[in-house]
Amino acid sequence: MYEYMITEDEYFERINKISLKVKEKGLDAVLIVSCESEPANVRYLSNYTPIFETAGIIINKDGEAILLIGPESERLAEEHSVVKRIKKLIEFRESSDPDYPDIKHDSFKEIFKEMKISKRLGLIGTNIMTVQAYEGILSAAKRIDIVKSDEILRDLRMFKSRKEIELLKKAASIAEEGFKYAIERIKPGMTEIQATAECIYGIFSKGAEDTGFKVWILSGEGANQAIGKSRYKIIKESEIVQINMGASVNGYVSSFGRPVVYGKLPTDIKKIIRIGLKANELTYSLMKPRAEASDIAKKVHSYIREIGYSDYIVYGPAHGIGMMECEYPFIETTSDYKLKKNMTFAVDTFLGGARYGLRFEDTALVTNNGIERFTNYGRKIINL
Amino acid sequence: MYEYMITEDEYFERINKISLKVKEKGLDAVLIVSCESEPANVRYLSNYTPIFETAGIIINKDGEAILLIGPESERLAEEHSVVKRIKKLIEFRESSDPDYPDIKHDSFKEIFKEMKISKRLGLIGTNIMTVQAYEGILSAAKRIDIVKSDEILRDLRMFKSRKEIELLKKAASIAEEGFKYAIERIKPGMTEIQATAECIYGIFSKGAEDTGFKVWILSGEGANQAIGKSRYKIIKESEIVQINMGASVNGYVSSFGRPVVYGKLPTDIKKIIRIGLKANELTYSLMKPRAEASDIAKKVHSYIREIGYSDYIVYGPAHGIGMMECEYPFIETTSDYKLKKNMTFAVDTFLGGARYGLRFEDTALVTNNGIERFTNYGRKIINL
Repeated sequence: MYEYMITEDEYFERINKISLKVKEKGLDAVLIVSCESEPANVRYLSNYTPIFETAGIIINKDGEAILLIGPESERLAEEHSVVKRIKKLIEFRESSDPDYPDIKHDSFKEIFKEMKISKRLGLIGTNIMTVQAYEGILSAAKRIDIVKSDEILRDLRMFKSRKEIELLKKAASIAEEGFKYAIERIKPGMTEIQATAECIYGIFSKGAEDTGFKVWILSGEGANQAIGKSRYKIIKESEIVQINMGASVNGYVSSFGRPVVYGKLPTDIKKIIRIGLKANELTYSLMKPRAEASDIAKKVHSYIREIGYSDYIVYGPAHGIGMMECEYPFIETTSDYKLKKNMTFAVDTFLGGARYGLRFEDTALVTNNGIERFTNYGRKIINL
Repeated sequence: MYEYMITEDEYFERINKISLKVKEKGLDAVLIVSCESEPANVRYLSNYTPIFETAGIIINKDGEAILLIGPESERLAEEHSVVKRIKKLIEFRESSDPDYPDIKHDSFKEIFKEMKISKRLGLIGTNIMTVQAYEGILSAAKRIDIVKSDEILRDLRMFKSRKEIELLKKAASIAEEGFKYAIERIKPGMTEIQATAECIYGIFSKGAEDTGFKVWILSGEGANQAIGKSRYKIIKESEIVQINMGASVNGYVSSFGRPVVYGKLPTDIKKIIRIGLKANELTYSLMKPRAEASDIAKKVHSYIREIGYSDYIVYGPAHGIGMMECEYPFIETTSDYKLKKNMTFAVDTFLGGARYGLRFEDTALVTNNGIERFTNYGRKIINL
């Protein structure tokens, strides 16, 4: 057993909290879904991660839970899921739609009956639920009201427990250590893809169970992409090498971003890195308990606009992080809430210009009286 | 430019073929979707891969195409997509549902108008389409008939071009070389996760753009999982170490699976590996042009049953492979078609017993008169 694990008790505590909310909202149950690229919802409640297939979990008002999996994952689920009532559904099969003539499936209809769902069923995760699953649910729930209920899980996942904070810290420190490992090995002349392999190996070798998202590196022209994909482009001296990497520890992820320059540092790059650092520090200085989220975004964007970089803004200066690299709550100019203790954020200063861009990204915790940064390495111009 | 690339001409040829089918079926257009874990559909037609977000492409009967992306991916799409008409849709945002108050979006309604969609719209990929996107489409298409049209793309993707075959071969050889690299470095005493890092590094260092799927290794108890996830479990001597790895080259993937035993080889493991190899060779001997797919599955399953391992069967002996690790066509006992030239398969012999299991997996091409195996290394008992 690995030491960085959520305990079974904590999983069942979460299930109980959801069940109480289900009752409170007058629902019979909620059905929560996940997919391979967004496993957070189901993993949060069972420790199960769907691979190739999709998955779900039903929690009813009596506190019962059933894990829903695709046809090929029975043993995978038995190994990882703390919820031991497991049902196989053809609607959660791989997207290539195999037939599985030799496997016996369960049906939504029987499961709904077993879970005493007769009047109102909440759905969580329709933004990632497949139409295939949705139609299966609708046809089994013809006399049942379907209610979108994302807020039930969102409100719970937003505040992190002591154990969750420990895992997020560990994921952050692995990313930071993996970054140090990688930048010593990356050299001009390597492709972005080869450099990415150094980051991934760094993350795994420091103890992660996986990367937290698809690691990417963009260098020179292209480093202005908010979301990126490493290319066969060769990394050169004197250009921005933007590294974005994160680790996953028991499903809890980190996000660590730094610009690095190998060889002689050009003046324009030096300037934009300094601006990025200033915007990043400004964000931290504003983040504290009871601060208005929208206020933080407005002030950081004002600063960027004042110095003439308004074109570089794509989104707000920070976003929630936990089991997803980017999750609720956001810090945007429209965000209407106050920061609270035990919220965790990725402070994500991204500036994307016409030719290149950069990102400083770290994860941090809102504490009683301020903010605790999980990573600090390289908050400067990294010139190797 | 990397040599292993589908040319722009080939992408536009595909778009034209889809457009002809659209016309033939009396549709105004088709809307095709992809997500991060299943990017194949959209990448096949544009070279664009969604990251974090989802994506789509609309192709109308006049041969026009528009790429649909989420709010943060404009520059990513400009870099990779051969389709240069690009629209941003809030429905394709990250699943955490950010607001993006500072980004201007397009709407399905305007896009449908621009693409002259007024009567009949085909949808492709509803098995991965999110409810979020589906509802956006339905509400913009109130007077338009929606027709599920997966067969249009499936029939096209099923037969591989010369260039596609070249890429699939390259992806296969990278996985094979990466496997050789990894098994020299994996040692008893490492965790499955650490061993996985060696495989991933091997794949990247041999020239892949990425892994073809989430590489996994399971050892000893647990190696019986058809779909798996590497664990913190320590690899021991004299147990099956099941390695499943694949590379991606320009989006074309391979799947390479082998059982390996470090240290003394126990008799029971030797026996089951030999059975796996026999079932695997039997599959190859049956795969040729004009062979009935269901016949192949029935004969291989009969053999496994005869020797008393019927409990070990989860699915058929082979499945299509291309831009997805598992794609149409399947070789199942219910598969009603004949093998044809230029179909590519993953010959996937998986046996899962009560305690452990194993998989031999390679990719192969149906040729004029037989089958060409892309990988051959280690088709024996690998005992190190």
